[in-house]
Amino acid sequence: MARQSDHHAVLRERLIDAAERTIAANGLAGLRARDLAREAGCAVGTIYNVFEHLDELILCVGSRTLAMLDAALEAGRLGRPYGSTEDAADDLVRLALAYLEFAARHTVRWRALFEHRMSEERQLPQWFVDQQHQLFAQVERPLVTLLPDLDPDARRILARTLFSAVHGIVALGLEEKLVSLLLPDLRSQLAATVRAIASGRHQLRHQIASSLRSSQ
Amino acid sequence: MARQSDHHAVLRERLIDAAERTIAANGLAGLRARDLAREAGCAVGTIYNVFEHLDELILCVGSRTLAMLDAALEAGRLGRPYGSTEDAADDLVRLALAYLEFAARHTVRWRALFEHRMSEERQLPQWFVDQQHQLFAQVERPLVTLLPDLDPDARRILARTLFSAVHGIVALGLEEKLVSLLLPDLRSQLAATVRAIASGRHQLRHQIASSLRSSQ
Repeated sequence: MARQSDHHAVLRERLIDAAERTIAANGLAGLRARDLAREAGCAVGTIYNVFEHLDELILCVGSRTLAMLDAALEAGRLGRPYGSTEDAADDLVRLALAYLEFAARHTVRWRALFEHRMSEERQLPQWFVDQQHQLFAQVERPLVTLLPDLDPDARRILARTLFSAVHGIVALGLEEKLVSLLLPDLRSQLAATVRAIASGRHQLRHQIASSLRSSQ
Repeated sequence: MARQSDHHAVLRERLIDAAERTIAANGLAGLRARDLAREAGCAVGTIYNVFEHLDELILCVGSRTLAMLDAALEAGRLGRPYGSTEDAADDLVRLALAYLEFAARHTVRWRALFEHRMSEERQLPQWFVDQQHQLFAQVERPLVTLLPDLDPDARRILARTLFSAVHGIVALGLEEKLVSLLLPDLRSQLAATVRAIASGRHQLRHQIASSLRSSQ
């Protein structure tokens, strides 16, 4: 039994490695169970013994991408608590710029993270959702200092909104389709927008409070 | 000759209609030249007499989507010049909310607009780029009042950046994947963020000016 479960774990890693190489090089479009099986040295059917479905395998690669992203965002973090709202605003800008660098450097696998849709109306598994939460927690940290009276739920939602805004600027900016910018210009546009949001935080706070009042 | 060119124009319209129905219902994934030809009552080869390539046909549908979006953004426009920066900020928020409503209502064809990539490294044709410019001009209008001393090139770039930020909030918000929000909450998050950017506009102006200085 022990040896079989070892074998299972080894195969699992080998299949994730193979899928990761394919996704990092060509995105989701080139992913075929047949090719993965060949690369991992197993039968196609074996994939479905080791993973519930191909979506699970893709999420395992997505999880590695999220971990890389999490580490990249964490890397430039201030080694001490924020001394002021200015510090916190700087850190929000730093996070946005780190996100841009990550996306510019790992464009194909980063796009795959957002392009992947679960088949057959399957829900995202909880472990994957938890890993996303961990990522957003990095954005929540400066918000605690910038908007100290915001309750935790509203802060969680706001962190996602700011992430989405940054993601939009990065995604369309790197696309060079609607918004064609060189990387240095993209950096300064991104920094300026995030800085403006941080400086307009009282307005943000006021708006969120009044929308909560009106929905109660 | 006249009759042949009439026939050409009729076929062109019929093929765009067929592609529009398919894209509006199922997005780009379901688009097959064979099906379009059958629906338009012509041979598959005829598509390539009438259009340079399938990309051109897809862009013609994209152009209709852009025109619908342009009209939707224009619809709620203030019938008079802005009386104050407050007016202009309100209009920026209105544009963002109109964008959200459009995307929520026409999700499939709206997504197709962003998912489409030209094949074989083809450039986007100028007529399509011009139509995008027209759309961004709606975002530039309030910026003239909000940041009157920004030069036109910087304003054009900033309009695209703000569009991208709004797009990111809308796209990830409607996805219900990373950011799961109900539509009313998404509305208030979007409005709050845009309002914060408008209220932080001096910071934005300052950042853009200093990044221009450092790149000279």
